[in-house]
Amino acid sequence: MPKFKTIAFDADDTLWVNEPIFTSTRQQFEEILSTYIHFDENLEKELYAVESRNLRLFGYGIKGFTLSMIESALELTDYKIHGKDIERIIGLGKEMLEHPVQVLPGIEDILDLLENHYQLMIITKGDLWDQESKVARSGLMRYFDLVEIVSEKNPDSYRDVLRRNQIEVEDFLMIGNSLKSDVLPVVELGGTAIHIPFHDTWTHEQMDKSEIKDLSYVEMSSVSELKSFLGV
Amino acid sequence: MPKFKTIAFDADDTLWVNEPIFTSTRQQFEEILSTYIHFDENLEKELYAVESRNLRLFGYGIKGFTLSMIESALELTDYKIHGKDIERIIGLGKEMLEHPVQVLPGIEDILDLLENHYQLMIITKGDLWDQESKVARSGLMRYFDLVEIVSEKNPDSYRDVLRRNQIEVEDFLMIGNSLKSDVLPVVELGGTAIHIPFHDTWTHEQMDKSEIKDLSYVEMSSVSELKSFLGV
Repeated sequence: MPKFKTIAFDADDTLWVNEPIFTSTRQQFEEILSTYIHFDENLEKELYAVESRNLRLFGYGIKGFTLSMIESALELTDYKIHGKDIERIIGLGKEMLEHPVQVLPGIEDILDLLENHYQLMIITKGDLWDQESKVARSGLMRYFDLVEIVSEKNPDSYRDVLRRNQIEVEDFLMIGNSLKSDVLPVVELGGTAIHIPFHDTWTHEQMDKSEIKDLSYVEMSSVSELKSFLGV
Repeated sequence: MPKFKTIAFDADDTLWVNEPIFTSTRQQFEEILSTYIHFDENLEKELYAVESRNLRLFGYGIKGFTLSMIESALELTDYKIHGKDIERIIGLGKEMLEHPVQVLPGIEDILDLLENHYQLMIITKGDLWDQESKVARSGLMRYFDLVEIVSEKNPDSYRDVLRRNQIEVEDFLMIGNSLKSDVLPVVELGGTAIHIPFHDTWTHEQMDKSEIKDLSYVEMSSVSELKSFLGV
């Protein structure tokens, strides 16, 4: 049984629901556009293409996503979209920013068990303002000793976070729903990572299994399996 | 002569030019709207009103500012603005995000003098992705031991930053252009702060002098005055 000192959780779709909010917003976006064009799967790919090309400038988060929705809507409707509908798209973004934070099942139970035995940490990527707001609104802050919000999750950013907090990689366990962001970079550094898949994964975070076949990590179907893994 | 261990610099309009980029963008925004409406001072206040009411949701930064420009443009033109002009406004936001970072005069000279004597730090508020990009593009990173990007600058956030980095407030000197964000909260904590005004200040950062009459801080007209203040 490995002994860890610090256990870090990803936030979006690990501690609380996130991607389904984007999915629902994409559907409402399609509904707005459906009065102008026939919105098929190819057009959905167009939104993702705009998101992807803007990622370099905007980074992750709802504000950049909202700007990408507006840009897509202009292109897809050949600039015919009405101002009222642009306003509705901005409204979709604002609703996302104010969406209640829905903590995932089993999270509070496991945090209750872990909090007296480990240094607990959140490591999340995205928009500073929005992520801090979600941490506060989640009601989970009382469990966590450290919150790190990073602009990107890769071996360099994890190395920075560990160094900044004087954490040795062999004492560190990372838990998250994204192989690309939560598992792969930590395993590359020599740390331990647990993958708990979530049913809804953003295209950008999806990985081909062949990319990870040589890397060793733990897969769980539910956060409650942590109890036996850690012996708590 | 006070002896400090850590000297922290604000970034925007302290290390590099920032507000003039917003000012220039606001002018271009007005030009776009001028084909629809007569853009007088009252209408400029409208943009700031939209910015202010969105601050709670968007936080600081260019992406939120761009969304506020679009929202203002829709309201001010009674939704008559053409899609091509909405696209131009998004383009203004993107240009801001890619704008070359122009380091202010005297900054490199003083950092050269200070780097071997003090722990040097950047404390800036705003958008994580954009601020990290500017730090990288500024070419100044080699001088700094620590970079802290916070969502808001108030006594609580400075207290967090100092604690996180094991800095005692009496060893800490903060330098910045904003009385509200760089000077006042640090002095309230018992630290030392130097105000170096910049010619262009965002309305949101402007303070009435009466609010600060009882607080003691140092005022300089140029960063080069640091040499004699610190005796380097």
